[in-house]
Amino acid sequence: MADLRAACLNLPAGNDAAAAEALARQATLTKPPGSLGRLEEIATWLAKWGGASRRLDRVDVLIFAGNHGITAQGVSPYPAAVTAQMVANFNHGGAAINQLAQVSSATLRVVALDLDRPTADFTLEPAMDEAAFLKAVAEGYNAVRAGTDLVCLGEMGIGNTTAAAAIAAALYGGGGARWAGRGTGLDDRGMERKRAAIDTALARHAGLLGDPLMIAATFGGRELAAILGATLAARHRGIPVLLDGFVCTAAVAPLAKLRADALDHTQAAHVSAEAGHRALLGELKLQPLLDLGMRLGEGSGAALAVPMLRAALACHTGMATFAEAGVAGKPH
Amino acid sequence: MADLRAACLNLPAGNDAAAAEALARQATLTKPPGSLGRLEEIATWLAKWGGASRRLDRVDVLIFAGNHGITAQGVSPYPAAVTAQMVANFNHGGAAINQLAQVSSATLRVVALDLDRPTADFTLEPAMDEAAFLKAVAEGYNAVRAGTDLVCLGEMGIGNTTAAAAIAAALYGGGGARWAGRGTGLDDRGMERKRAAIDTALARHAGLLGDPLMIAATFGGRELAAILGATLAARHRGIPVLLDGFVCTAAVAPLAKLRADALDHTQAAHVSAEAGHRALLGELKLQPLLDLGMRLGEGSGAALAVPMLRAALACHTGMATFAEAGVAGKPH
Repeated sequence: MADLRAACLNLPAGNDAAAAEALARQATLTKPPGSLGRLEEIATWLAKWGGASRRLDRVDVLIFAGNHGITAQGVSPYPAAVTAQMVANFNHGGAAINQLAQVSSATLRVVALDLDRPTADFTLEPAMDEAAFLKAVAEGYNAVRAGTDLVCLGEMGIGNTTAAAAIAAALYGGGGARWAGRGTGLDDRGMERKRAAIDTALARHAGLLGDPLMIAATFGGRELAAILGATLAARHRGIPVLLDGFVCTAAVAPLAKLRADALDHTQAAHVSAEAGHRALLGELKLQPLLDLGMRLGEGSGAALAVPMLRAALACHTGMATFAEAGVAGKPH
Repeated sequence: MADLRAACLNLPAGNDAAAAEALARQATLTKPPGSLGRLEEIATWLAKWGGASRRLDRVDVLIFAGNHGITAQGVSPYPAAVTAQMVANFNHGGAAINQLAQVSSATLRVVALDLDRPTADFTLEPAMDEAAFLKAVAEGYNAVRAGTDLVCLGEMGIGNTTAAAAIAAALYGGGGARWAGRGTGLDDRGMERKRAAIDTALARHAGLLGDPLMIAATFGGRELAAILGATLAARHRGIPVLLDGFVCTAAVAPLAKLRADALDHTQAAHVSAEAGHRALLGELKLQPLLDLGMRLGEGSGAALAVPMLRAALACHTGMATFAEAGVAGKPH
């Protein structure tokens, strides 16, 4: 755990000179200052975090999948077997993310993490011991390929919105009442069970709530640990990241608790309809790009936002300056 | 004007059977019901309004440009000459919309409308007489090509946020105070002039505020009239439309005042940072797809939203059903 903690604390900074250069160029382009709104911010962010390539050709969508002992508490309307069934669906090209990755010219890669060995029920004991947690973090870390221009992160795991809600509650307080949502479509009685499971777990593991990495191991899951690892790897390798929904955001929140600027190389692609997501983005000061009532996971929101990043980059690099175009740039 | 009024009132309905079929298919796809949020609504909307092709291959971005006599009132920080300079920039590929259309695999077509003959200053007399208005509407109508899968509409015209605000005020009340925004970057004294110009014009032309088409002719501009014509043509030809920002939305608002369902074949691609846009979308009950603080015009927001429509369609047509994928679709 000490090595991981060190890797979380010793993070490379972004390229401030490139960001300043991008900002200066924005002011010369044939548009009123600021009129491309968020696209201008994205262009500057890509300059800061996107490394030397300044391209978005090689985009990976990484989906991590895991199974969860917490399903024993009746927190999902779907059986745990659906996780593996959906992984097969990903591999056969039949899921939403397959279509979305194709529209966004991104490469989909699915990493199934020990689906036949669910994590422990964290109302009773930690979801993962240190070894299992570190192994999953490493799998995520190693899934990020050097030379990638952008990584989109997503997940699949029946029960994992409960894990995500428990992590958020452990990091930011408020208990199950604040963070539990309906996930894939939980009914009211299921919601009561979900809130209760979170509160029971928070009480049981109260002693470790001061340690973000222990929180990730204790309440999380393998796919969440892998997302944490992948986000860390992207930072160390100079690759910007698009985060997907509630589970994905909760997975990386421990990084921000360890170091406030740990997610500066990421963008929240969208705000999910899952109840806790807007509040969690608020805690992390992440402003979502899209708000479309989606709540699927699988990296779907992240993949959907890729063309917006390409659009921002294309405007930034392709537009003429006022001088080049012979357009009167100064107000009269 | 009688022919135009008839064309505005006698609108073809959408394909309700195709929409119902799309809705039924949504329920069978490998995702929790409703979890793709707005993408599911878009897929159903495309089925209803997209005709038989069910493709989004041939996408046109139409930019209409016009000049405005109202600039004499000091309502824009940029000189009117910028309209023609930006049209040249479009034609040379240097503007934001050129890059955005390319990223979205759309064809950009620019229609400059008598730029050397600005409309009249509508604080003094109607911006256009009936003949000029009908000619501009017809140019827009004829710019929509049969066989197009989707039309994105945009505009360029120094001074045209004042025309748009005046149309909105004439249709929905509230005067310059409610509808004037900073456009390309107007200062506080300019804002006073803009609000005053709108209020002066509303008082001068008070007698015709009951007639939406006369409002469009009196307070509008050629590019706004052309957008109205293009939106009408798309409805009659069975082509869905993506509207851009405040000016584009104001241009089509008279259609909705004539007939409440006149814009059902359109989507608001985004909500602009221009002050009146959110209120105008509210009046029209249009829910924007994107909210990115953009305020450029040129069809930029519309072009940016094209990949989202392609994503919605790809999910709808490409995803496996629960039965096909062998995924447990029913909650246990």
